[in-house]
Amino acid sequence: MFDTLAVLGTGLIGASILRAAKARGLARRLVAWDIRADASGHCLENGWAHEAPQALAEAVREADLVVIATPADTVGELAGRISAHLKHGALVTDAGSTKGHAARIAHAAMPAYAFYVGAHPMAGSEKNGPGAARAELFEGRACFITPMAGRTDEDAALRVGEFWAALGARPVTASPDDHDEIVAHVSHLPHAAAAALACTLANHPDSWRECAGGGLRDTTRVAGGDVEIWRAILMENRHEVVRAIGAFERELVALREALESNDSTRLCEMLERGKAWRDGFPA
Amino acid sequence: MFDTLAVLGTGLIGASILRAAKARGLARRLVAWDIRADASGHCLENGWAHEAPQALAEAVREADLVVIATPADTVGELAGRISAHLKHGALVTDAGSTKGHAARIAHAAMPAYAFYVGAHPMAGSEKNGPGAARAELFEGRACFITPMAGRTDEDAALRVGEFWAALGARPVTASPDDHDEIVAHVSHLPHAAAAALACTLANHPDSWRECAGGGLRDTTRVAGGDVEIWRAILMENRHEVVRAIGAFERELVALREALESNDSTRLCEMLERGKAWRDGFPA
Repeated sequence: MFDTLAVLGTGLIGASILRAAKARGLARRLVAWDIRADASGHCLENGWAHEAPQALAEAVREADLVVIATPADTVGELAGRISAHLKHGALVTDAGSTKGHAARIAHAAMPAYAFYVGAHPMAGSEKNGPGAARAELFEGRACFITPMAGRTDEDAALRVGEFWAALGARPVTASPDDHDEIVAHVSHLPHAAAAALACTLANHPDSWRECAGGGLRDTTRVAGGDVEIWRAILMENRHEVVRAIGAFERELVALREALESNDSTRLCEMLERGKAWRDGFPA
Repeated sequence: MFDTLAVLGTGLIGASILRAAKARGLARRLVAWDIRADASGHCLENGWAHEAPQALAEAVREADLVVIATPADTVGELAGRISAHLKHGALVTDAGSTKGHAARIAHAAMPAYAFYVGAHPMAGSEKNGPGAARAELFEGRACFITPMAGRTDEDAALRVGEFWAALGARPVTASPDDHDEIVAHVSHLPHAAAAALACTLANHPDSWRECAGGGLRDTTRVAGGDVEIWRAILMENRHEVVRAIGAFERELVALREALESNDSTRLCEMLERGKAWRDGFPA
């Protein structure tokens, strides 16, 4: 599909892209780069990459496709740092969890002969680092492709969509701003809720945790995620996340008030509405 | 361990008790009763019970141990309805999710020659009904044993604890009121949070749900639970649940305010605190 694929940032997502691209034969040559040499070295040692240069310029020089898989708030900056070293016709995409801000910077940074197309695979884990990478991470998962109207090359957007589909994901096209509103609700809000729930429980004895069933475990799972990655995501998308948390607070207060006023009918109405939505989840 | 075991209410929990008791050889004779004859009939047809009488009196008459596994707000009433039909020396326990209120009613209902001991296994599923029952449901799960000081017979409490341990659970002793405070936080609050989160998402297009990764799926899983069962639990324990939701709201507002004021340090502090708590979860 490509001659040379370079992945910048080989944490969970970047290393999984390398593993998936290798397993599916999507590139002849795979290049890993990470600011921490041990992370890109891990990919080299495990045979997920053919080379792992320390210099960023060297990592992208031959690449037909560059995937930036670093934390959300560094994507724009990294696009700027590689722009002078890209080859003619190179495609650049990313896997960042926020799009509006990064997309504007990345587009502005591209030379006329290279093409940026934002992307965001809806896959992850509460584990992080290349040691947690899996070739199947993206299978069946939605992957946002976020072209900017009037800025993103349409052919490049199609090819980047085909790349993510070839990794096993299901491409979904949305504008960068629509993307940020949607993920604020389907990803960042659940993370904020899980973190706040974990903080609530952290005020009580540890022995309580050992009494919990599967519900608390699942509801808080994502709160175990990497702090630096999630700090970056939540701060980068904070305007949308604040709005989403506000909407969630209103539902929570309505539920509490139904209990306070002993209003079984209102409580049932909310439980029914939540269940109907949850039951519609793809199995 | 017992000659005759009667389980009243053969939904997910009750039918799983029958299956586990059968698999582990805990009783010579297993009796299933449910207000819906199809639910107890399901247990009979699958060989999980030896009989499934329609009359409640008949179901408990020979029982050495009666387990009430009906919805939380019916446990006290059912204890009253069976009391006149219990044999001398019978043990009565339950699997209800709230304890303070039910324990007082159940104790008051017992004849002098029978012994009530409250219990609550921390196991369940978003699926319900006997079709979802599993013999392994209680394995490794905590099970609260909730003796009332000065009311519950100590020997009876020990024997009921041994029964739940024999089903594979890990008995944890707590007073009924302590139990209700703990489960308000480790079980009922996560359910309320999941329901409110599902209601928040239900205000947006269904297509958003299809873009979600595993985080939203896990965070809302319990919102798919049976509405009538959860209405009963949340209403029965509403005073403690209201307090727990209030504490959760305060953490959520603190997180939102950290984002609104662009305060990365405060956000990190909360994410760290939540992660430290979540990482302490037994693997």
